[in-house]
Amino acid sequence: MKILLVNDDGILAPGIQKLYETIKGLGDITVVAPDGERSAVSHALTLDKPMPIRQVDTGIFQGTAVMGTPADCVKLALAEIMSGTPDLVLSGINLGCNTGLNVVYSGTVGGAAEAVFNDIPAVALSLDTYTDPNWEPVLPFVYDLVKTVIEKGLPQGVLLNVNIPNVKNAEEIKDVLITEQGMAHWQEKFDKRIDPKGRTYYWMTGKKRERKEAETIDDTAIKNNYISVTPVQFNLTAHDKLEQIKELGLNYKK
Amino acid sequence: MKILLVNDDGILAPGIQKLYETIKGLGDITVVAPDGERSAVSHALTLDKPMPIRQVDTGIFQGTAVMGTPADCVKLALAEIMSGTPDLVLSGINLGCNTGLNVVYSGTVGGAAEAVFNDIPAVALSLDTYTDPNWEPVLPFVYDLVKTVIEKGLPQGVLLNVNIPNVKNAEEIKDVLITEQGMAHWQEKFDKRIDPKGRTYYWMTGKKRERKEAETIDDTAIKNNYISVTPVQFNLTAHDKLEQIKELGLNYKK
Repeated sequence: MKILLVNDDGILAPGIQKLYETIKGLGDITVVAPDGERSAVSHALTLDKPMPIRQVDTGIFQGTAVMGTPADCVKLALAEIMSGTPDLVLSGINLGCNTGLNVVYSGTVGGAAEAVFNDIPAVALSLDTYTDPNWEPVLPFVYDLVKTVIEKGLPQGVLLNVNIPNVKNAEEIKDVLITEQGMAHWQEKFDKRIDPKGRTYYWMTGKKRERKEAETIDDTAIKNNYISVTPVQFNLTAHDKLEQIKELGLNYKK
Repeated sequence: MKILLVNDDGILAPGIQKLYETIKGLGDITVVAPDGERSAVSHALTLDKPMPIRQVDTGIFQGTAVMGTPADCVKLALAEIMSGTPDLVLSGINLGCNTGLNVVYSGTVGGAAEAVFNDIPAVALSLDTYTDPNWEPVLPFVYDLVKTVIEKGLPQGVLLNVNIPNVKNAEEIKDVLITEQGMAHWQEKFDKRIDPKGRTYYWMTGKKRERKEAETIDDTAIKNNYISVTPVQFNLTAHDKLEQIKELGLNYKK
């Protein structure tokens, strides 16, 4: 069982160290991860410049740090770094949940997606806090989850997007819920600032818009202290809108 | 009719100049685009550093150049640059088609997606060539398409992903086909190189894997000289796999 670990918080982030320690008994682990934080890079690829790599020993594992995105890391791992194809790719454990439309922006999901595009089962793992993670209630579940995925496999072309509430103790977590992606979105704000030479620049901030969604939607699930597990796929066709678009009567006049 | 133009080839790229010239009679146009090429940046956002902007006069239009991604540009345009919400967002015209799994990596689509997340109709436009674009057979169609979208609107939450074959003359284009996204993927190759200090780096290249797909799939359509129009949405839930994932029996042991 060859397992590839990636993330978008960078190879030194605590989440990937914890993930490694938790699942190291389940297979032969390779770590290829960004050299620093690459949050909200989505599926971005580095095409216009080179990608330096270096070997890193974090004290917990030895891995390859890539000056690139999570998607770059998985592509590079598959093409160059690993001997043979991994049987499983795990991305995370990210600090900050990847639910609602954040799934689209998420580098954590972007890394796992690369695996799925190559028919390798993959799981994206996120913990719902940016600060102050409490790992104890999380890691035994992650172990069980990964073991189950190894034993039972996943449907082709689908990754599991797993979001875990950040609780003080295990009693607070209600259970696992298989969910659908919601459409919750962030409301951006831009700090307008002036640089030392008098030129304008902006800094993006924002917060999630609250949105009332069903109990089986990812954001609602973690709000209710369920672990949210969403099967995610990458055919973006709006199948239910094909007829409506045909009715626009678009045509090509020669 | 307020129209926002964005792209991922950068504000000086020919595609956005041609787009502006073609549709300038259809509304009040604002251009906010990256200051340089941002291909394959997907939905990436710039969160960890500031985004300088500057006003640019390209000779064809005056616009705002942003040191950011297409998604950044649209967010910034909506929050800060435009007075009032645009009625339509157009992204492109990109050089290089955005079909198959490229839809996931595409900055062109990523820019249009931001509009859709804010309930603004949007169209992503791409021409199937990296070099040697032939605009004459393209631009009258783009004008008709934009006019139709203005007149008839689009379903909420859906953008049109339009890919146009690059032909010598209009006769060669068969017609418009409403298509589904295919799953064609690139086969990456990495050039392994050594930097002047003896350290390893990689440069990503690759080519599209040929894949036999139905005539109503985006890649097949443009190969057959149809203009491909795919309605695209961003709920990535694998709805048809929810039951199968429930059968994994995942649970939380306290």
